[in-house]
Amino acid sequence: MITGADVQDRVRIPRNEKNDYSEEMAGKRREFVRERTGANLSHVAQYSLDPASLPGNIENFIGVAQVPIGVAGPLRINGEQAQGNFYIPLATTEGSLVASYNRGMRLLTESGGVKTTVVEVSMQRAPVFIVDDARQAREFGRWVEEHLPAIREQAEATTQFGKLRNIGQFAVGPLRYLRFNYTTGDAAGQNMAAKATYAACEWIKKNYPGRLKYFLSGNIDTDKKHSHLNTLLTRGKRVVAEAVIRREAMLRLMQLDPKELFYARQVQMVGGFLAGSANNGAHAANGLAALFIATGQDVACIAESHAAITYSQYLDDGDFYWSITLPSLIVGTCGGGTGLATQKQCLEMLGCYGEGKVQRLAEICAAVVLAGETSLAAAMLNGDWVSAHERLGRNRPSIEGGLS
Amino acid sequence: MITGADVQDRVRIPRNEKNDYSEEMAGKRREFVRERTGANLSHVAQYSLDPASLPGNIENFIGVAQVPIGVAGPLRINGEQAQGNFYIPLATTEGSLVASYNRGMRLLTESGGVKTTVVEVSMQRAPVFIVDDARQAREFGRWVEEHLPAIREQAEATTQFGKLRNIGQFAVGPLRYLRFNYTTGDAAGQNMAAKATYAACEWIKKNYPGRLKYFLSGNIDTDKKHSHLNTLLTRGKRVVAEAVIRREAMLRLMQLDPKELFYARQVQMVGGFLAGSANNGAHAANGLAALFIATGQDVACIAESHAAITYSQYLDDGDFYWSITLPSLIVGTCGGGTGLATQKQCLEMLGCYGEGKVQRLAEICAAVVLAGETSLAAAMLNGDWVSAHERLGRNRPSIEGGLS
Amino acid sequence: MITGADVQDRVRIPRNEKNDYSEEMAGKRREFVRERTGANLSHVAQYSLDPASLPGNIENFIGVAQVPIGVAGPLRINGEQAQGNFYIPLATTEGSLVASYNRGMRLLTESGGVKTTVVEVSMQRAPVFIVDDARQAREFGRWVEEHLPAIREQAEATTQFGKLRNIGQFAVGPLRYLRFNYTTGDAAGQNMAAKATYAACEWIKKNYPGRLKYFLSGNIDTDKKHSHLNTLLTRGKRVVAEAVIRREAMLRLMQLDPKELFYARQVQMVGGFLAGSANNGAHAANGLAALFIATGQDVACIAESHAAITYSQYLDDGDFYWSITLPSLIVGTCGGGTGLATQKQCLEMLGCYGEGKVQRLAEICAAVVLAGETSLAAAMLNGDWVSAHERLGRNRPSIEGGLS
Amino acid sequence: MITGADVQDRVRIPRNEKNDYSEEMAGKRREFVRERTGANLSHVAQYSLDPASLPGNIENFIGVAQVPIGVAGPLRINGEQAQGNFYIPLATTEGSLVASYNRGMRLLTESGGVKTTVVEVSMQRAPVFIVDDARQAREFGRWVEEHLPAIREQAEATTQFGKLRNIGQFAVGPLRYLRFNYTTGDAAGQNMAAKATYAACEWIKKNYPGRLKYFLSGNIDTDKKHSHLNTLLTRGKRVVAEAVIRREAMLRLMQLDPKELFYARQVQMVGGFLAGSANNGAHAANGLAALFIATGQDVACIAESHAAITYSQYLDDGDFYWSITLPSLIVGTCGGGTGLATQKQCLEMLGCYGEGKVQRLAEICAAVVLAGETSLAAAMLNGDWVSAHERLGRNRPSIEGGLS
Repeated sequence: MITGADVQDRVRIPRNEKNDYSEEMAGKRREFVRERTGANLSHVAQYSLDPASLPGNIENFIGVAQVPIGVAGPLRINGEQAQGNFYIPLATTEGSLVASYNRGMRLLTESGGVKTTVVEVSMQRAPVFIVDDARQAREFGRWVEEHLPAIREQAEATTQFGKLRNIGQFAVGPLRYLRFNYTTGDAAGQNMAAKATYAACEWIKKNYPGRLKYFLSGNIDTDKKHSHLNTLLTRGKRVVAEAVIRREAMLRLMQLDPKELFYARQVQMVGGFLAGSANNGAHAANGLAALFIATGQDVACIAESHAAITYSQYLDDGDFYWSITLPSLIVGTCGGGTGLATQKQCLEMLGCYGEGKVQRLAEICAAVVLAGETSLAAAMLNGDWVSAHERLGRNRPSIEGGLS
Repeated sequence: MITGADVQDRVRIPRNEKNDYSEEMAGKRREFVRERTGANLSHVAQYSLDPASLPGNIENFIGVAQVPIGVAGPLRINGEQAQGNFYIPLATTEGSLVASYNRGMRLLTESGGVKTTVVEVSMQRAPVFIVDDARQAREFGRWVEEHLPAIREQAEATTQFGKLRNIGQFAVGPLRYLRFNYTTGDAAGQNMAAKATYAACEWIKKNYPGRLKYFLSGNIDTDKKHSHLNTLLTRGKRVVAEAVIRREAMLRLMQLDPKELFYARQVQMVGGFLAGSANNGAHAANGLAALFIATGQDVACIAESHAAITYSQYLDDGDFYWSITLPSLIVGTCGGGTGLATQKQCLEMLGCYGEGKVQRLAEICAAVVLAGETSLAAAMLNGDWVSAHERLGRNRPSIEGGLS
Repeated sequence: MITGADVQDRVRIPRNEKNDYSEEMAGKRREFVRERTGANLSHVAQYSLDPASLPGNIENFIGVAQVPIGVAGPLRINGEQAQGNFYIPLATTEGSLVASYNRGMRLLTESGGVKTTVVEVSMQRAPVFIVDDARQAREFGRWVEEHLPAIREQAEATTQFGKLRNIGQFAVGPLRYLRFNYTTGDAAGQNMAAKATYAACEWIKKNYPGRLKYFLSGNIDTDKKHSHLNTLLTRGKRVVAEAVIRREAMLRLMQLDPKELFYARQVQMVGGFLAGSANNGAHAANGLAALFIATGQDVACIAESHAAITYSQYLDDGDFYWSITLPSLIVGTCGGGTGLATQKQCLEMLGCYGEGKVQRLAEICAAVVLAGETSLAAAMLNGDWVSAHERLGRNRPSIEGGLS
Repeated sequence: MITGADVQDRVRIPRNEKNDYSEEMAGKRREFVRERTGANLSHVAQYSLDPASLPGNIENFIGVAQVPIGVAGPLRINGEQAQGNFYIPLATTEGSLVASYNRGMRLLTESGGVKTTVVEVSMQRAPVFIVDDARQAREFGRWVEEHLPAIREQAEATTQFGKLRNIGQFAVGPLRYLRFNYTTGDAAGQNMAAKATYAACEWIKKNYPGRLKYFLSGNIDTDKKHSHLNTLLTRGKRVVAEAVIRREAMLRLMQLDPKELFYARQVQMVGGFLAGSANNGAHAANGLAALFIATGQDVACIAESHAAITYSQYLDDGDFYWSITLPSLIVGTCGGGTGLATQKQCLEMLGCYGEGKVQRLAEICAAVVLAGETSLAAAMLNGDWVSAHERLGRNRPSIEGGLS
């Protein structure tokens, strides 16, 4: 006879409350899965990382996903922290991704490299405070401004590295959304920001001379989500990659005339605007996702990190100025998955493991993204270019302005 | 003396044009990287997959990222294709993610499970055609409508599985953006859609009795990017997960009253709207990224896939109806990384490897997302709840409506 | 003693249920207002329209707002319906508006005029149907598709001019938003669409073999509101104005080089994208509001109508191709305020009074908007231009690309 | 023989450079229009305003648009500046608008009135500065911060009433968008902000120790355009109207149960989010446009002013808390059209003419908007209600949650 408890036992995943991070427990869970699903997890069971290194990274560990890494480069970066030629580890299962980025890196490198700049740093937790009406909410907002030093003290007492820059305020009816903006050292910093903000909120609740309640997130953070707010006001790193791409190099390596590219950019910018896109460029997510997996970043943050704003100009000498701004790039060089076996090694490839390296990593991310933009743009236009001989007459201005 | 050629040799990553997918070449590249960057790639070199299986997945292969997998479940799903209890492989380096989703799965399972439905299927490539003026563009649009059967024939001739559903049209000045909507069988289908659309575009260019040029992407696809267009008009799968969560279970497992949750939802929905967020729920990206890495999906598609629309109601009996709609979920059960060693095994855990399984996988993705929503919402509200004893008086209606 | 009834009498605005549209009743109400607010409405009382003409336009009539009208032009339009030189009545209280549009009209006219094209026509009412779950909602959607002929019959039976083009469907959880798209003859057509859709919805509710409820608006119409949906899918008229502006004329009349303008456009497009703007051009609302007031349009529809997409190219001969697309222009030449005294006369100035004129009016609106764009762009750039002598050296490419 | 000059004379609108603001010149222009278009402008010629009062309001004056005004009220407002019962002049040609708002005003008034609060004040001009690269742009941004006192001095020297609150900064590539935020006294203040910002920009250009150029608008202001930026960061007045609507009053006056309304609000909020709407409420533009025309506001600013965020809760006692937040309401009580004949009288109806009244007017606007929201919501739901007897069974929770 099968009792309810038996059923419970049969469906509950095995755990060892004392020491769950062992190959033994991983094996028990794989066996449990095999029994219930029929799946053989022989490959999942192959790894060199030490299960004992995993607390804080995973629960119910059963093994690993083996994600192939390809290397691309060299990519010449002229950053403030990232300077020199870089070889980039890209973990992906999408064919041609590495090759395509590689091609873009060559174009940029042969044009003298990519200039990279982190222009703003800001990680958030954004609670919402609820009072009785809009007037009280405005009053509460003033009180927060006046008590910023005390609030900062509370928040910063919880963390060694986090510093509260300022608190943005957004008013809706009786709600006051507060956006706590931090610098977070080398960590991506979401947890640091949450913990600090929680302490600050509790202090506010105790000390504010009025009734209020709050939620630790009012959903404007927006953590693991793209939002226009993040594009405007920065989340994580706001970082710019820019390059003047030589006409000669673009023609030679990409078979593309910068003038044609600029013509196409007008259409692409309209497309991005029309679609209500998070990114008026091409495909930042591709390079970023591959870099994030390789280097132990929080891959869910692709949601925020893939946003971008491309700004370009066709220069009088025929060269092409190309910039891409990532307004909400979420990266860290400590914490999260950065210390795991393969992830640490990939960070070391970039000289980005350990303290004081996060800006360097952000710069590399932006440079990689720009490489991918150049390559995909050329591929897309060359599809058209290839068949150029089939084109009808092209002497009329409104069609062919960029091509003649 | 170092010549230019020497320099070139020293920076170019080793490749073997004849057979690049071998452990030997991987090793040469690791050595190349070690020499130039100092990074020891000993862990990256540890894998059980066969390098010979990697053409079409990676270039310049050097090894793998080992991403820890945890298992969560069981998750009861009452889908059309996914039916029963599922154990979910989640590949992540973010601590507590698996535990949190696991808790949500329990809540849903004890409430009778998640109902899942794929309501629309549509993969795109969206070229833009450029003619001389808006009037010609309108004329061109009509011509495309009239020639849809021939265009479909051209597109579908390139693919065994892809079917052209229809072509959306968007007019801007002399531009006509065409959005080719396909079903793509079990593949995510981006490449299939691109190839088919290219063939169609070339046919159009040859046969249209007027001057035109086109770009294969007009940037409204929007591939690897969130866009409002995708939220409205679907990209990949539009899939819904919904559940009636029992008040008793929510109180017992989450220490949360559905009434309080509904109160909070009003604030969260305003926050999502205010922020201009891609998702008025909580954190779809977390579960999806972990599932995508484990099962060999294109992880860059988190950019599109994390968009979501939450719709909920507080029911008269005190239960809570909760739905989440993913309008642009990009998944496949063949192609991409789905056939690689660990990825295939994780798909097998879900009964999703091979033909005819993509809808099942889409349903599982949505169910997992809903589990994560419930868990994070409870955690966020319980942060407040924990300190409820410290709260000031709470009898006035506009603050405390959801809590009394 | 003042009783409750007395108080009621004292605050209620006088009405005459039998014949409220008379100067006598208007006078009584003005007196009522004067007694309670002290405001002398002597000017409000000055009008030449006949109060008896006002049923269907206003309730509780007390007089008129006298909004000054200025005339601008001639504006050369090469439309499908609007052809020739036009003199444009602009009702506004904002100084320089008429002068600025007038200047733009001269530039366009001297460049050969504006080409205008209505590329799509579609007025909506968008109800939402609610069923038990997403699966039923999908089923309901199919049923609607299958019964489109019967639904169309019901909708069109309520109107002489309205024709149901198609029904868009948007799925969220158990909700099915239906977007009924109509052509509405010469009327703007909101009421026509509402009435027809109501009939269709009632028929659906009676005939659908399942449980459902509906709201006549699910808030995606989006009536009197800008929305990205409208920009994508058209509301009212989607109309394009385009012109090739001669370099010579722009230099002579605007002291502006098209090359500089194109340089600036790159920055402006980025600004529009960054801001999340409804319009990546300059100020469509200015000209439209003035035209709408003068010609009896529904001025609240500026909310929708001011959305726009600018697309431009710098041509090889130094001329400037400039297009602006208004995706949701709401205008009519019958119904609403079009038949009132001054409004009718202003429509007659444009040859737009009466049947068969709505496309002509839409074309004129777009042409006027383009005129305003050129003028403001030049003014903005000339502010910089004026002080050009103070500028620092300008030989470096990334700053001065467009100016040298 | 007709010469070019003759042609020019025949098409040019008559102007008198010395004194153009006379009935004589208006008459000449009307005659000119009549000759060229055939339109008789007899009604346009009827007005009581003095043409000599019009410099600064119109050019090429030919007469007026007579826009009918209806009066609605009383509307009980419990604002900070607006306190008491108000009678509202609404200038519109759309039938039922006045009646509908009037009904909502009664509901609000009988529920105790509307509480109104201006929570933020901020008018902008947002120039963009362009330097050589992102690093210089970041440096420039710091310089601006450091020189804020000097910049403020320059800006404020140009205006009696404008005060520079702060300067927001937004970084894209080599561009630095600066958003100058002002308070502007009783004026809407666009021109004041432009003039002050121009002075500041010229000073910056002279004093910045590096190369730069700027445009006075970088298109993120966003003047006369809705933008997400404005919704987040306020343009003009951010003003809230809120009310607790009594269940009894809603049932009696609207035949609507607040519980049903709250159920519907969930659907409407999803609709607003799905559509990418500027406003998740109903139709703020209707009341605002009518008020703007009556009181001499800049009607083009409906583009910005119609944005809104509705936040509501269903209270435990069955009442309904309803708030609407207008984040970018653009109004003034001096300047613009506020001093014209009828416009001034309508402002006097509201006690809003002259100095120190702008906050009062903003509060009235918000209160009027809330009245319209209640009325339209009820009308929409009653359309469904009316036919309630035809509804199928309604006992199942997911459909009928709000209705039982």
